[in-house]
Amino acid sequence: MERITIIGLGLIGGSIALGLKAAQLKDVEVVGSDRDRDAVSGARKAGAVDRIEVDDRDAVRGAGLVVVATPVRAIRAVFESIAPALAEGAVVTDTGSTKADVAKWAKELLPAHASFVGGHPMAGKETAGIGAAEAGLLREKVYCLAPSLQADDRAIRTVVGLVQALGATPWFIDAEEHDRYVAAISHLPIVTSAALFSMVRGSKAWNDLAPLASSGFRDATRLASGDPRMAADIFATNRDSVIHWLDRFVDELRAYRSLLEGAHDSEELHTRLRSVQNGRDEFMAGRGYDRGAPRPPVDIPSASASFTSLLIPQWAAEKMKDIERTTEQRAKEAAENARREIEAERERDRPKE
Amino acid sequence: MERITIIGLGLIGGSIALGLKAAQLKDVEVVGSDRDRDAVSGARKAGAVDRIEVDDRDAVRGAGLVVVATPVRAIRAVFESIAPALAEGAVVTDTGSTKADVAKWAKELLPAHASFVGGHPMAGKETAGIGAAEAGLLREKVYCLAPSLQADDRAIRTVVGLVQALGATPWFIDAEEHDRYVAAISHLPIVTSAALFSMVRGSKAWNDLAPLASSGFRDATRLASGDPRMAADIFATNRDSVIHWLDRFVDELRAYRSLLEGAHDSEELHTRLRSVQNGRDEFMAGRGYDRGAPRPPVDIPSASASFTSLLIPQWAAEKMKDIERTTEQRAKEAAENARREIEAERERDRPKE
Repeated sequence: MERITIIGLGLIGGSIALGLKAAQLKDVEVVGSDRDRDAVSGARKAGAVDRIEVDDRDAVRGAGLVVVATPVRAIRAVFESIAPALAEGAVVTDTGSTKADVAKWAKELLPAHASFVGGHPMAGKETAGIGAAEAGLLREKVYCLAPSLQADDRAIRTVVGLVQALGATPWFIDAEEHDRYVAAISHLPIVTSAALFSMVRGSKAWNDLAPLASSGFRDATRLASGDPRMAADIFATNRDSVIHWLDRFVDELRAYRSLLEGAHDSEELHTRLRSVQNGRDEFMAGRGYDRGAPRPPVDIPSASASFTSLLIPQWAAEKMKDIERTTEQRAKEAAENARREIEAERERDRPKE
Repeated sequence: MERITIIGLGLIGGSIALGLKAAQLKDVEVVGSDRDRDAVSGARKAGAVDRIEVDDRDAVRGAGLVVVATPVRAIRAVFESIAPALAEGAVVTDTGSTKADVAKWAKELLPAHASFVGGHPMAGKETAGIGAAEAGLLREKVYCLAPSLQADDRAIRTVVGLVQALGATPWFIDAEEHDRYVAAISHLPIVTSAALFSMVRGSKAWNDLAPLASSGFRDATRLASGDPRMAADIFATNRDSVIHWLDRFVDELRAYRSLLEGAHDSEELHTRLRSVQNGRDEFMAGRGYDRGAPRPPVDIPSASASFTSLLIPQWAAEKMKDIERTTEQRAKEAAENARREIEAERERDRPKE
């Protein structure tokens, strides 16, 4: 009997629990733990886990795989708490929205006899909590994996097994690289949504604006309804990258402002908007970019497969070795490149007078 | 037999045509016109209109109500073209996204024997064209109406009848006021969506960013897939208001940037995000603002009602008189207030050092 423990039974932890239940894995017991009573009773009601433990230390005893699915900044305390109770050979993963700080905490706090593989499923919705959890939430979604340098093949294989059981696609990536990328496509949009909503809400004309606001405004501000604790933790642990992209976004808005100024007698803005429309339509159709790492060439485990019996796919092993070799060097280079790129883009976007 | 002519059979014009068909109005003929062959054949295929006329001048002959549903900047040319053919007492309305320039063109170009009532249904989607049109697109949506000072009760009653036949809610508003408001909740979000998409798309890291982009990025950039011609026309005719709100938005982003800088050791950002979340949840539930003008206290016309037999609701008549009295005075005052408001908000948001 394999034991999987999930700490944090919110939207993501709850969806993983329900997803594992739906995968009907043989000889696997799923144990859940959450400090929040509503989360615990919600998990019980949904039949998401086989057993609940109030204390996270009790929950991880004897577990082969531990999934920490709390907001990012709570992960540190969970690692501290569970470290003494982790079994020999236990594999620990998390679902935090940022990966570099979590990797640091894992190195600092988890025992040498446990292996850490950071994780981040690229899925979510603005409704938080176990009540919004779905067995299929991660299905066909990209699931980032950032193995620690110490993680062995078996540990990675175990987490890949989890990801595949949920129907998601493993996507190997360096932790620092992950944080810089998601700052652009996931964290900055939270800031722009919140700022758009709070600007309009804070206007003296709010009573006149609100009744006119339609689907465009609602979609553009959807992320402003997301869990504020989760967002605050993201910004606390990925501050510099988010500020980097925020500055670039303000530069981009300035470029649009220049185009707006000429909008009454020039077609330049129209040309720009047409090219943006084409670009987005391509993106939505899954074209216009190199799709990078292939989907795993192995099948989703069948009901009879247990995690540890899954062979690690060859491409994953190679990608992992790549990451090991180059992690530190690449992080430094990337930081330097980012700096150069900002300078170049600022130069380019500066209004020509 | 009443004749209604719709010029421009795209998403909105097509949806109005289909909505009228669905309302099964007695003794009403719907005539359509569009310069685009695909729009014409699409309208024929959808059975959206009773008759097609290639020339918009032929299309409006004998019509009691003319609906101009082209992109905003094309409306001027349509008014010029149809003016000589409009019947005595014809009522002209439009569905343009901005209202002040259209009102000017109506005053300048339409004959004195026709009445103009500007209109703007607060509904849309990012897919343009007759293929995306739906009979129910405007149902339960707010439909702004900005009658010209010359429009008489009968003209307003006619357009209110149209709006109610489509299941929408008439919302009387001054044209200049309308443009300032929709700049915030409808036009600025187009700019922020396009800028977010083009910034990310233009990054050297695009190939690494795109595969990770999930529903958050897709929603926040949805408006970037909208019709670029429509958007360019909006910005050309509402430039100053959009720039006004864009500048305020950049100020708001700067305030968030300050909060981000302290995100690792302060709860201020979390508090702000929680309040934004509460505000948006309230807004989505239709609370947290004065819902302003009531829904019309009259029923949607039944299948047997023709437009002109509808009595104008009392509240609409009063609101209209209000607008007549104060239009010019209010426009000046509002411009002055807006200037003061920006100054005050800039002062308030300036980082305290």
